[in-house]
Amino acid sequence: MLFEKIDTTGLAHYSYIIGDQNEAVVIDPRRDIDVYLNKASKQGYQIKYIFETHRNEDYVIGSFDLAKLTGAQIWHADYNLNYQYGQAVRDQQKFSVGRLKIKAINTPGHTLNSFSYILYDFSEEPLMVFTGDALFAGDTGRVDLMGEDLMDELAHKLYDSIYNKILPLSDSVIMCPAHGSGSVCGHAIAERELTTLGLEKKVNPNLQYENEEEFVENVKEVLERPPYFREMERLNLTGSSFIRGLPETEALKPGHFDKKLQSGDTLVLDIRNELDFAAAHIPNSISIWQEGLASFAGWFIPYDKDLLLMTAGNYPEEAINILRRLGYDRIKGYLKGGMLKWHMSGKKSNYIKTIRVQKLCTLIDQSRDYWLLDIRGEEEIAESGKIKNAHNIHITQLPDNLDKIPTEQPVYIFCGSGLRSTTAASLLLREGFENIHVILGGLAGWSSTTCPIV
Amino acid sequence: MLFEKIDTTGLAHYSYIIGDQNEAVVIDPRRDIDVYLNKASKQGYQIKYIFETHRNEDYVIGSFDLAKLTGAQIWHADYNLNYQYGQAVRDQQKFSVGRLKIKAINTPGHTLNSFSYILYDFSEEPLMVFTGDALFAGDTGRVDLMGEDLMDELAHKLYDSIYNKILPLSDSVIMCPAHGSGSVCGHAIAERELTTLGLEKKVNPNLQYENEEEFVENVKEVLERPPYFREMERLNLTGSSFIRGLPETEALKPGHFDKKLQSGDTLVLDIRNELDFAAAHIPNSISIWQEGLASFAGWFIPYDKDLLLMTAGNYPEEAINILRRLGYDRIKGYLKGGMLKWHMSGKKSNYIKTIRVQKLCTLIDQSRDYWLLDIRGEEEIAESGKIKNAHNIHITQLPDNLDKIPTEQPVYIFCGSGLRSTTAASLLLREGFENIHVILGGLAGWSSTTCPIV
Amino acid sequence: MLFEKIDTTGLAHYSYIIGDQNEAVVIDPRRDIDVYLNKASKQGYQIKYIFETHRNEDYVIGSFDLAKLTGAQIWHADYNLNYQYGQAVRDQQKFSVGRLKIKAINTPGHTLNSFSYILYDFSEEPLMVFTGDALFAGDTGRVDLMGEDLMDELAHKLYDSIYNKILPLSDSVIMCPAHGSGSVCGHAIAERELTTLGLEKKVNPNLQYENEEEFVENVKEVLERPPYFREMERLNLTGSSFIRGLPETEALKPGHFDKKLQSGDTLVLDIRNELDFAAAHIPNSISIWQEGLASFAGWFIPYDKDLLLMTAGNYPEEAINILRRLGYDRIKGYLKGGMLKWHMSGKKSNYIKTIRVQKLCTLIDQSRDYWLLDIRGEEEIAESGKIKNAHNIHITQLPDNLDKIPTEQPVYIFCGSGLRSTTAASLLLREGFENIHVILGGLAGWSSTTCPIV
Amino acid sequence: MLFEKIDTTGLAHYSYIIGDQNEAVVIDPRRDIDVYLNKASKQGYQIKYIFETHRNEDYVIGSFDLAKLTGAQIWHADYNLNYQYGQAVRDQQKFSVGRLKIKAINTPGHTLNSFSYILYDFSEEPLMVFTGDALFAGDTGRVDLMGEDLMDELAHKLYDSIYNKILPLSDSVIMCPAHGSGSVCGHAIAERELTTLGLEKKVNPNLQYENEEEFVENVKEVLERPPYFREMERLNLTGSSFIRGLPETEALKPGHFDKKLQSGDTLVLDIRNELDFAAAHIPNSISIWQEGLASFAGWFIPYDKDLLLMTAGNYPEEAINILRRLGYDRIKGYLKGGMLKWHMSGKKSNYIKTIRVQKLCTLIDQSRDYWLLDIRGEEEIAESGKIKNAHNIHITQLPDNLDKIPTEQPVYIFCGSGLRSTTAASLLLREGFENIHVILGGLAGWSSTTCPIV
Repeated sequence: MLFEKIDTTGLAHYSYIIGDQNEAVVIDPRRDIDVYLNKASKQGYQIKYIFETHRNEDYVIGSFDLAKLTGAQIWHADYNLNYQYGQAVRDQQKFSVGRLKIKAINTPGHTLNSFSYILYDFSEEPLMVFTGDALFAGDTGRVDLMGEDLMDELAHKLYDSIYNKILPLSDSVIMCPAHGSGSVCGHAIAERELTTLGLEKKVNPNLQYENEEEFVENVKEVLERPPYFREMERLNLTGSSFIRGLPETEALKPGHFDKKLQSGDTLVLDIRNELDFAAAHIPNSISIWQEGLASFAGWFIPYDKDLLLMTAGNYPEEAINILRRLGYDRIKGYLKGGMLKWHMSGKKSNYIKTIRVQKLCTLIDQSRDYWLLDIRGEEEIAESGKIKNAHNIHITQLPDNLDKIPTEQPVYIFCGSGLRSTTAASLLLREGFENIHVILGGLAGWSSTTCPIV
Repeated sequence: MLFEKIDTTGLAHYSYIIGDQNEAVVIDPRRDIDVYLNKASKQGYQIKYIFETHRNEDYVIGSFDLAKLTGAQIWHADYNLNYQYGQAVRDQQKFSVGRLKIKAINTPGHTLNSFSYILYDFSEEPLMVFTGDALFAGDTGRVDLMGEDLMDELAHKLYDSIYNKILPLSDSVIMCPAHGSGSVCGHAIAERELTTLGLEKKVNPNLQYENEEEFVENVKEVLERPPYFREMERLNLTGSSFIRGLPETEALKPGHFDKKLQSGDTLVLDIRNELDFAAAHIPNSISIWQEGLASFAGWFIPYDKDLLLMTAGNYPEEAINILRRLGYDRIKGYLKGGMLKWHMSGKKSNYIKTIRVQKLCTLIDQSRDYWLLDIRGEEEIAESGKIKNAHNIHITQLPDNLDKIPTEQPVYIFCGSGLRSTTAASLLLREGFENIHVILGGLAGWSSTTCPIV
Repeated sequence: MLFEKIDTTGLAHYSYIIGDQNEAVVIDPRRDIDVYLNKASKQGYQIKYIFETHRNEDYVIGSFDLAKLTGAQIWHADYNLNYQYGQAVRDQQKFSVGRLKIKAINTPGHTLNSFSYILYDFSEEPLMVFTGDALFAGDTGRVDLMGEDLMDELAHKLYDSIYNKILPLSDSVIMCPAHGSGSVCGHAIAERELTTLGLEKKVNPNLQYENEEEFVENVKEVLERPPYFREMERLNLTGSSFIRGLPETEALKPGHFDKKLQSGDTLVLDIRNELDFAAAHIPNSISIWQEGLASFAGWFIPYDKDLLLMTAGNYPEEAINILRRLGYDRIKGYLKGGMLKWHMSGKKSNYIKTIRVQKLCTLIDQSRDYWLLDIRGEEEIAESGKIKNAHNIHITQLPDNLDKIPTEQPVYIFCGSGLRSTTAASLLLREGFENIHVILGGLAGWSSTTCPIV
Repeated sequence: MLFEKIDTTGLAHYSYIIGDQNEAVVIDPRRDIDVYLNKASKQGYQIKYIFETHRNEDYVIGSFDLAKLTGAQIWHADYNLNYQYGQAVRDQQKFSVGRLKIKAINTPGHTLNSFSYILYDFSEEPLMVFTGDALFAGDTGRVDLMGEDLMDELAHKLYDSIYNKILPLSDSVIMCPAHGSGSVCGHAIAERELTTLGLEKKVNPNLQYENEEEFVENVKEVLERPPYFREMERLNLTGSSFIRGLPETEALKPGHFDKKLQSGDTLVLDIRNELDFAAAHIPNSISIWQEGLASFAGWFIPYDKDLLLMTAGNYPEEAINILRRLGYDRIKGYLKGGMLKWHMSGKKSNYIKTIRVQKLCTLIDQSRDYWLLDIRGEEEIAESGKIKNAHNIHITQLPDNLDKIPTEQPVYIFCGSGLRSTTAASLLLREGFENIHVILGGLAGWSSTTCPIV
């Protein structure tokens, strides 16, 4: 028996490959599908089915490409939607893979027709359940993505799906959700590599409510919806470009890079860390550090521009993967040799002022000439505390709230660590703000010193 | 959180690496330890503890080498034994790895002081239990290895360990044993990649008995004990040679190979498949196909000889790993280019007669001049049936029962597939038997035709 | 500076990637182009040009796919041909790659408009010359492939190309040909990993002739022309299918394999070694051992059938690569688990009789009831000698000479080693011959014993 | 035939593995020997000989470790030295490897008894010559390392070795030196991946002199001698620690890192790039960017301290390799998560001021309050020009010339790019200097603008 969880960090996305004898199935494949082909072909499995738990909204699904190369059948969930390829699974539909049995069950709530898949052991007991975005470790799926109108209905459906379909399978069933800690598809998914329905019943905060009404009230939460979700929804219905046919990203010298940049409709996306970007970057770049790409590119990077990547100088293999998973297919080049070569070619760069927490602590004690911008989300603030007098604008709301930020005072931006602050600073610089400072270490650093937390 | 099961096929051995923040622990490492170092160092974990569940008898443990390179503490189980390195864990001892907690619990039964290790989630609920050889998927650990005298006592202890210490942890706890399907450390371990205590309670045959007495009676089974176990027990107490310092296995041309072979105290171990060996092999070779090495080398290959490997011609990387895991450190060379080069150099080879099931079926229908040797174990026979008139001598008992095998009649050997038959045939040829035939496809092939099964 | 020779064994094909700063060129890419993309992108080179030395006839060129993914310009040689993509290079055309210069020179002879490419060092001296199939280590290119009519003209052109264009570059120039030892594109290419024009002048047998006439007479040799050359010529003019979009080869169980096999237009290609095939194979399979695929598939495997591969049981990754390089795109599946599983499913197999040289030696000494078939080429025979009374039919001519082989006598086939004999035996078995024997070790084995050589 | 050049970047060191049939030799192996073992064992070669061209002074040779694992014979050059392992080769000594022949020839000059090795083709013509540090592409070996007293004698010997022993082999011989462009073992080795004796005769500047006297005068140059050379010379005579037994480098959290740092005899070596280090670093760190480690660690990093590495946060695999090649065996740990985690734990960091060339250009035009420190070498200055009023102290001489640097003026440091300036700045900061600026882009950036060059 083959069982592997493929953990796509960044998206915090889990896909699964399960096989027996010479057959395999993949659940919710990501777009860069070589990982499945390698695990299947090289070990003697033929991918027979591709199961989707729902029409995904946070990444481009790889079903289409994977089916093209393997001949596997695609089984979509959400049969109410108008897919342009594949077919939709029905409630209680059964499948076999080698000697194993799989049953699809309709578990709506996150979407109108999400499905879960139960895997039965050779003993015919349920061994695992693949819950998609219905139930996570320590969390439940969002019910706000179909619109606020449907939220109440979906929350009730979700309750029904979890309490009447999933949990009754048995405490001892291993639960395999579509996302882990850090995903935007949940609110606060727990950091638990493996879990069981029994454990979730005990510790999952959303499974501790008194009754359905209390559950519904609590899960009916409107979370942020990154603008790129629309594009994912579209691509996952219609099919995306064949990923293996996308052109290579070019290694560019400073001159070529600059020329492409001047040619309009081009954006520099700087994937280096906060210190690098602060020290020097190409004017007008947007800073999103590599590990932050999966979470923030979809907020700030448009689909209708050519992208040039700024790296430490090397080929941005992983960043290209991440961006392609989000449907960015116009990644034209990167600067070979990075800022070092840029400076060596005499080209201009910009920088961002940084401040250490110790100094900031002194500064706000002694002066009034500062404006503290806290770009963290509400919950982070609630959880970790805040600095006195800080103004809160969540980073994702920054573009719509520029008028609240002063231009005549020095602005000090903090987040949890300094990474998002750098992204925010890069956005403000593009808008013409000048006196912008990033607080290194962010609230974590601040809290580790003797500076006061509110 | 890092959690990985390292599945060493052949041994059907599972070791585990668990980590959080920058710390990691390894449970029951195998001897070729690079897998742990790669997963730890490259991902930013420092191996802090090495936990053993018991003094292993079926492979050379890697604790010593791993500690040497990482500075990790070795925690042996079986504190009654006189280890020459490391220290012994005590019941209820607690450890932390990053934010995770681990508790050792004394779960004797397989050995006098086997331990299990409970891993607690951040929620402080037990998430996983590492049961070593106490409890497997679909099976329980052997209680016969300490000698028949202690069997009854150990079976009672095992009952206590399982029923009073392990199972009460909760149905929803994920169970992580030290072996999977195919291991000689269990009787009939199930083919289940992951399991839970709850599922085992339902489907594990050894957990279905009425009461302690019934359990004890049933698990008090004397299974085979491969002779190499003694060597493993010795090495795991005293420490083995540093694996990274073992000399490379030489690529030999036919002339050199032959010369080494003539120099005495040297044995050819032929790791090719049944057809290759049957078609041509160096006289006096022992045939054990590569996937069978972990199970059969310890029965038939002595430690006091230099080994030369016969392969399809290529470097036997995986076979060397397998043999080293069993403590074979004298693997001197292999024949570059294999039998093709051997024949091209005009050297002599031997062959084994094969027969197809269809022909055998006709033959035994029409003649009495045959002697069928069934080398399968009793349970296999009970499960899959047998051929009329077959004489059963389990392959591992063959060396002690040569006198039962006729020399004046053609002998037809069958096992499940033809692989073990080839091993058996190679052993008989070395003993001077001549009229030996391997049945291709074995009982599986026989059963798939219209030939009769008893 | 980047310089790598990519050695595609089997085809004995050399392609090259050369780079400087952020630019690279590839010369004569093979069809599976990932090797170039990895060396280029990952190291910061953008492939700018693809140079072909001639319209290749022995493999599918990767220019089209590589250009699609990189945007590189394709420069064909043989401007007289009607290419459906790319453009044709002209004599003396100059290119730059980073700080390096490259000059194309028209060096006809192997084809009507073959080109060589001179690479100049930063010092502006010629450093290397890429001679394609004009000049090899120890050999010159074939002049017979355009037809016998043109042979004389081409031989004169080749003389001119070598003596007036290539050799005058300087003794110290490193020579980079398109093929190495073992290629069908030469007659007897030397086993020399690197060479120089000066060394070739001294030791290349074809450069030792007195004058042009003697050269021409000697190189005007009609060698064998495998039938697949026509298909390669066609594909290299029109462009082949995108290799990255070809479907995966399926892992099949015996039942599925058999079913596909029965469905007509399907052929089993058995890529195992001579002993495996002799011991057992699926009836009507064609045997070509893996290392022989590049040389013999194009002779015996048609393009209009689905192929099923028989391996030792594993995924035939390398064989698929080799076959795709030859344009075989219909590789539908392989038998997972190999003949072992086939036999275990009770299915029928065939075998080939083998004989060892020692026994053959005795046999032909004592009997007349044998027919020796020597399938080696004329030169091999001339070089290594032969066995008395052997009948010579070169393996490639076997299909056209079946009537010369007796059916009433045992036929003993030998080649150099036993590999080609097995291929030949498989072809004869398909034609209904029955009493066929493969001589293990072939003439090499025979010569290494005391058996007589003529 | 196997021929591979192993290019160890950083050291710009070339080692070679050559093989035929089942035998191989390695020339001048580096200390991390897995590369040779992989190329040999996995491809069926047994390493028979290890040849050294001289007692190397710039890296730890891997002969000892490689011999331990393969049983290969070690052949040292410099038979006048007192090696504690292996044996010394003699002039004209012959060896065979498979069908190839190798001859050692005494080619003193770089050391008293350096050797070159001639590889003969199957044709018995010399095919390649491995010249060690006698003759490079575009350069000749240093003659100053044995002390100035011997320089004249060695220069004459080198002339003799090159003109009477190496060059006469033939213009067409491929030359394989021990170093490429960037090595400290030459003065100005050319960037040429492959070369021949003939090409060197034409373009190597040191082979263009009129006569022996002129040659001698010109090559008698005293170059810098990094202090670590002494340690390499010692280790290469006595043997170094077994590299595979060296302990792993620990992943440390900020608290642990800081604690180790406080424990004395510990140094932080920061291998990040110039911008990272400038933006924030742990006080008292030495900055050497990763690609600069091979060149500068030996100047500034002592052997008697524990090293802690600062990286971008990841495991410094390549840096550890580089440092071990230089004999640094006390690499105790690295900061997991890098400066981000450091700042998040509220710990203090330092920064270095940077300046862009455009601004500097304006500044020195308008003010006198600056002190320009040019840390480039004399030749670089001669070649690329300098900035008016700059004070030159070569970076390697900085520790001995601290008194020349003012403390009351802002100091602006430039090198070619900004990398070495950052190293220099880190050294000055450790010495208590405060007003230190790194010029981003260095002279290259300066030259690419309209700022004046002298």
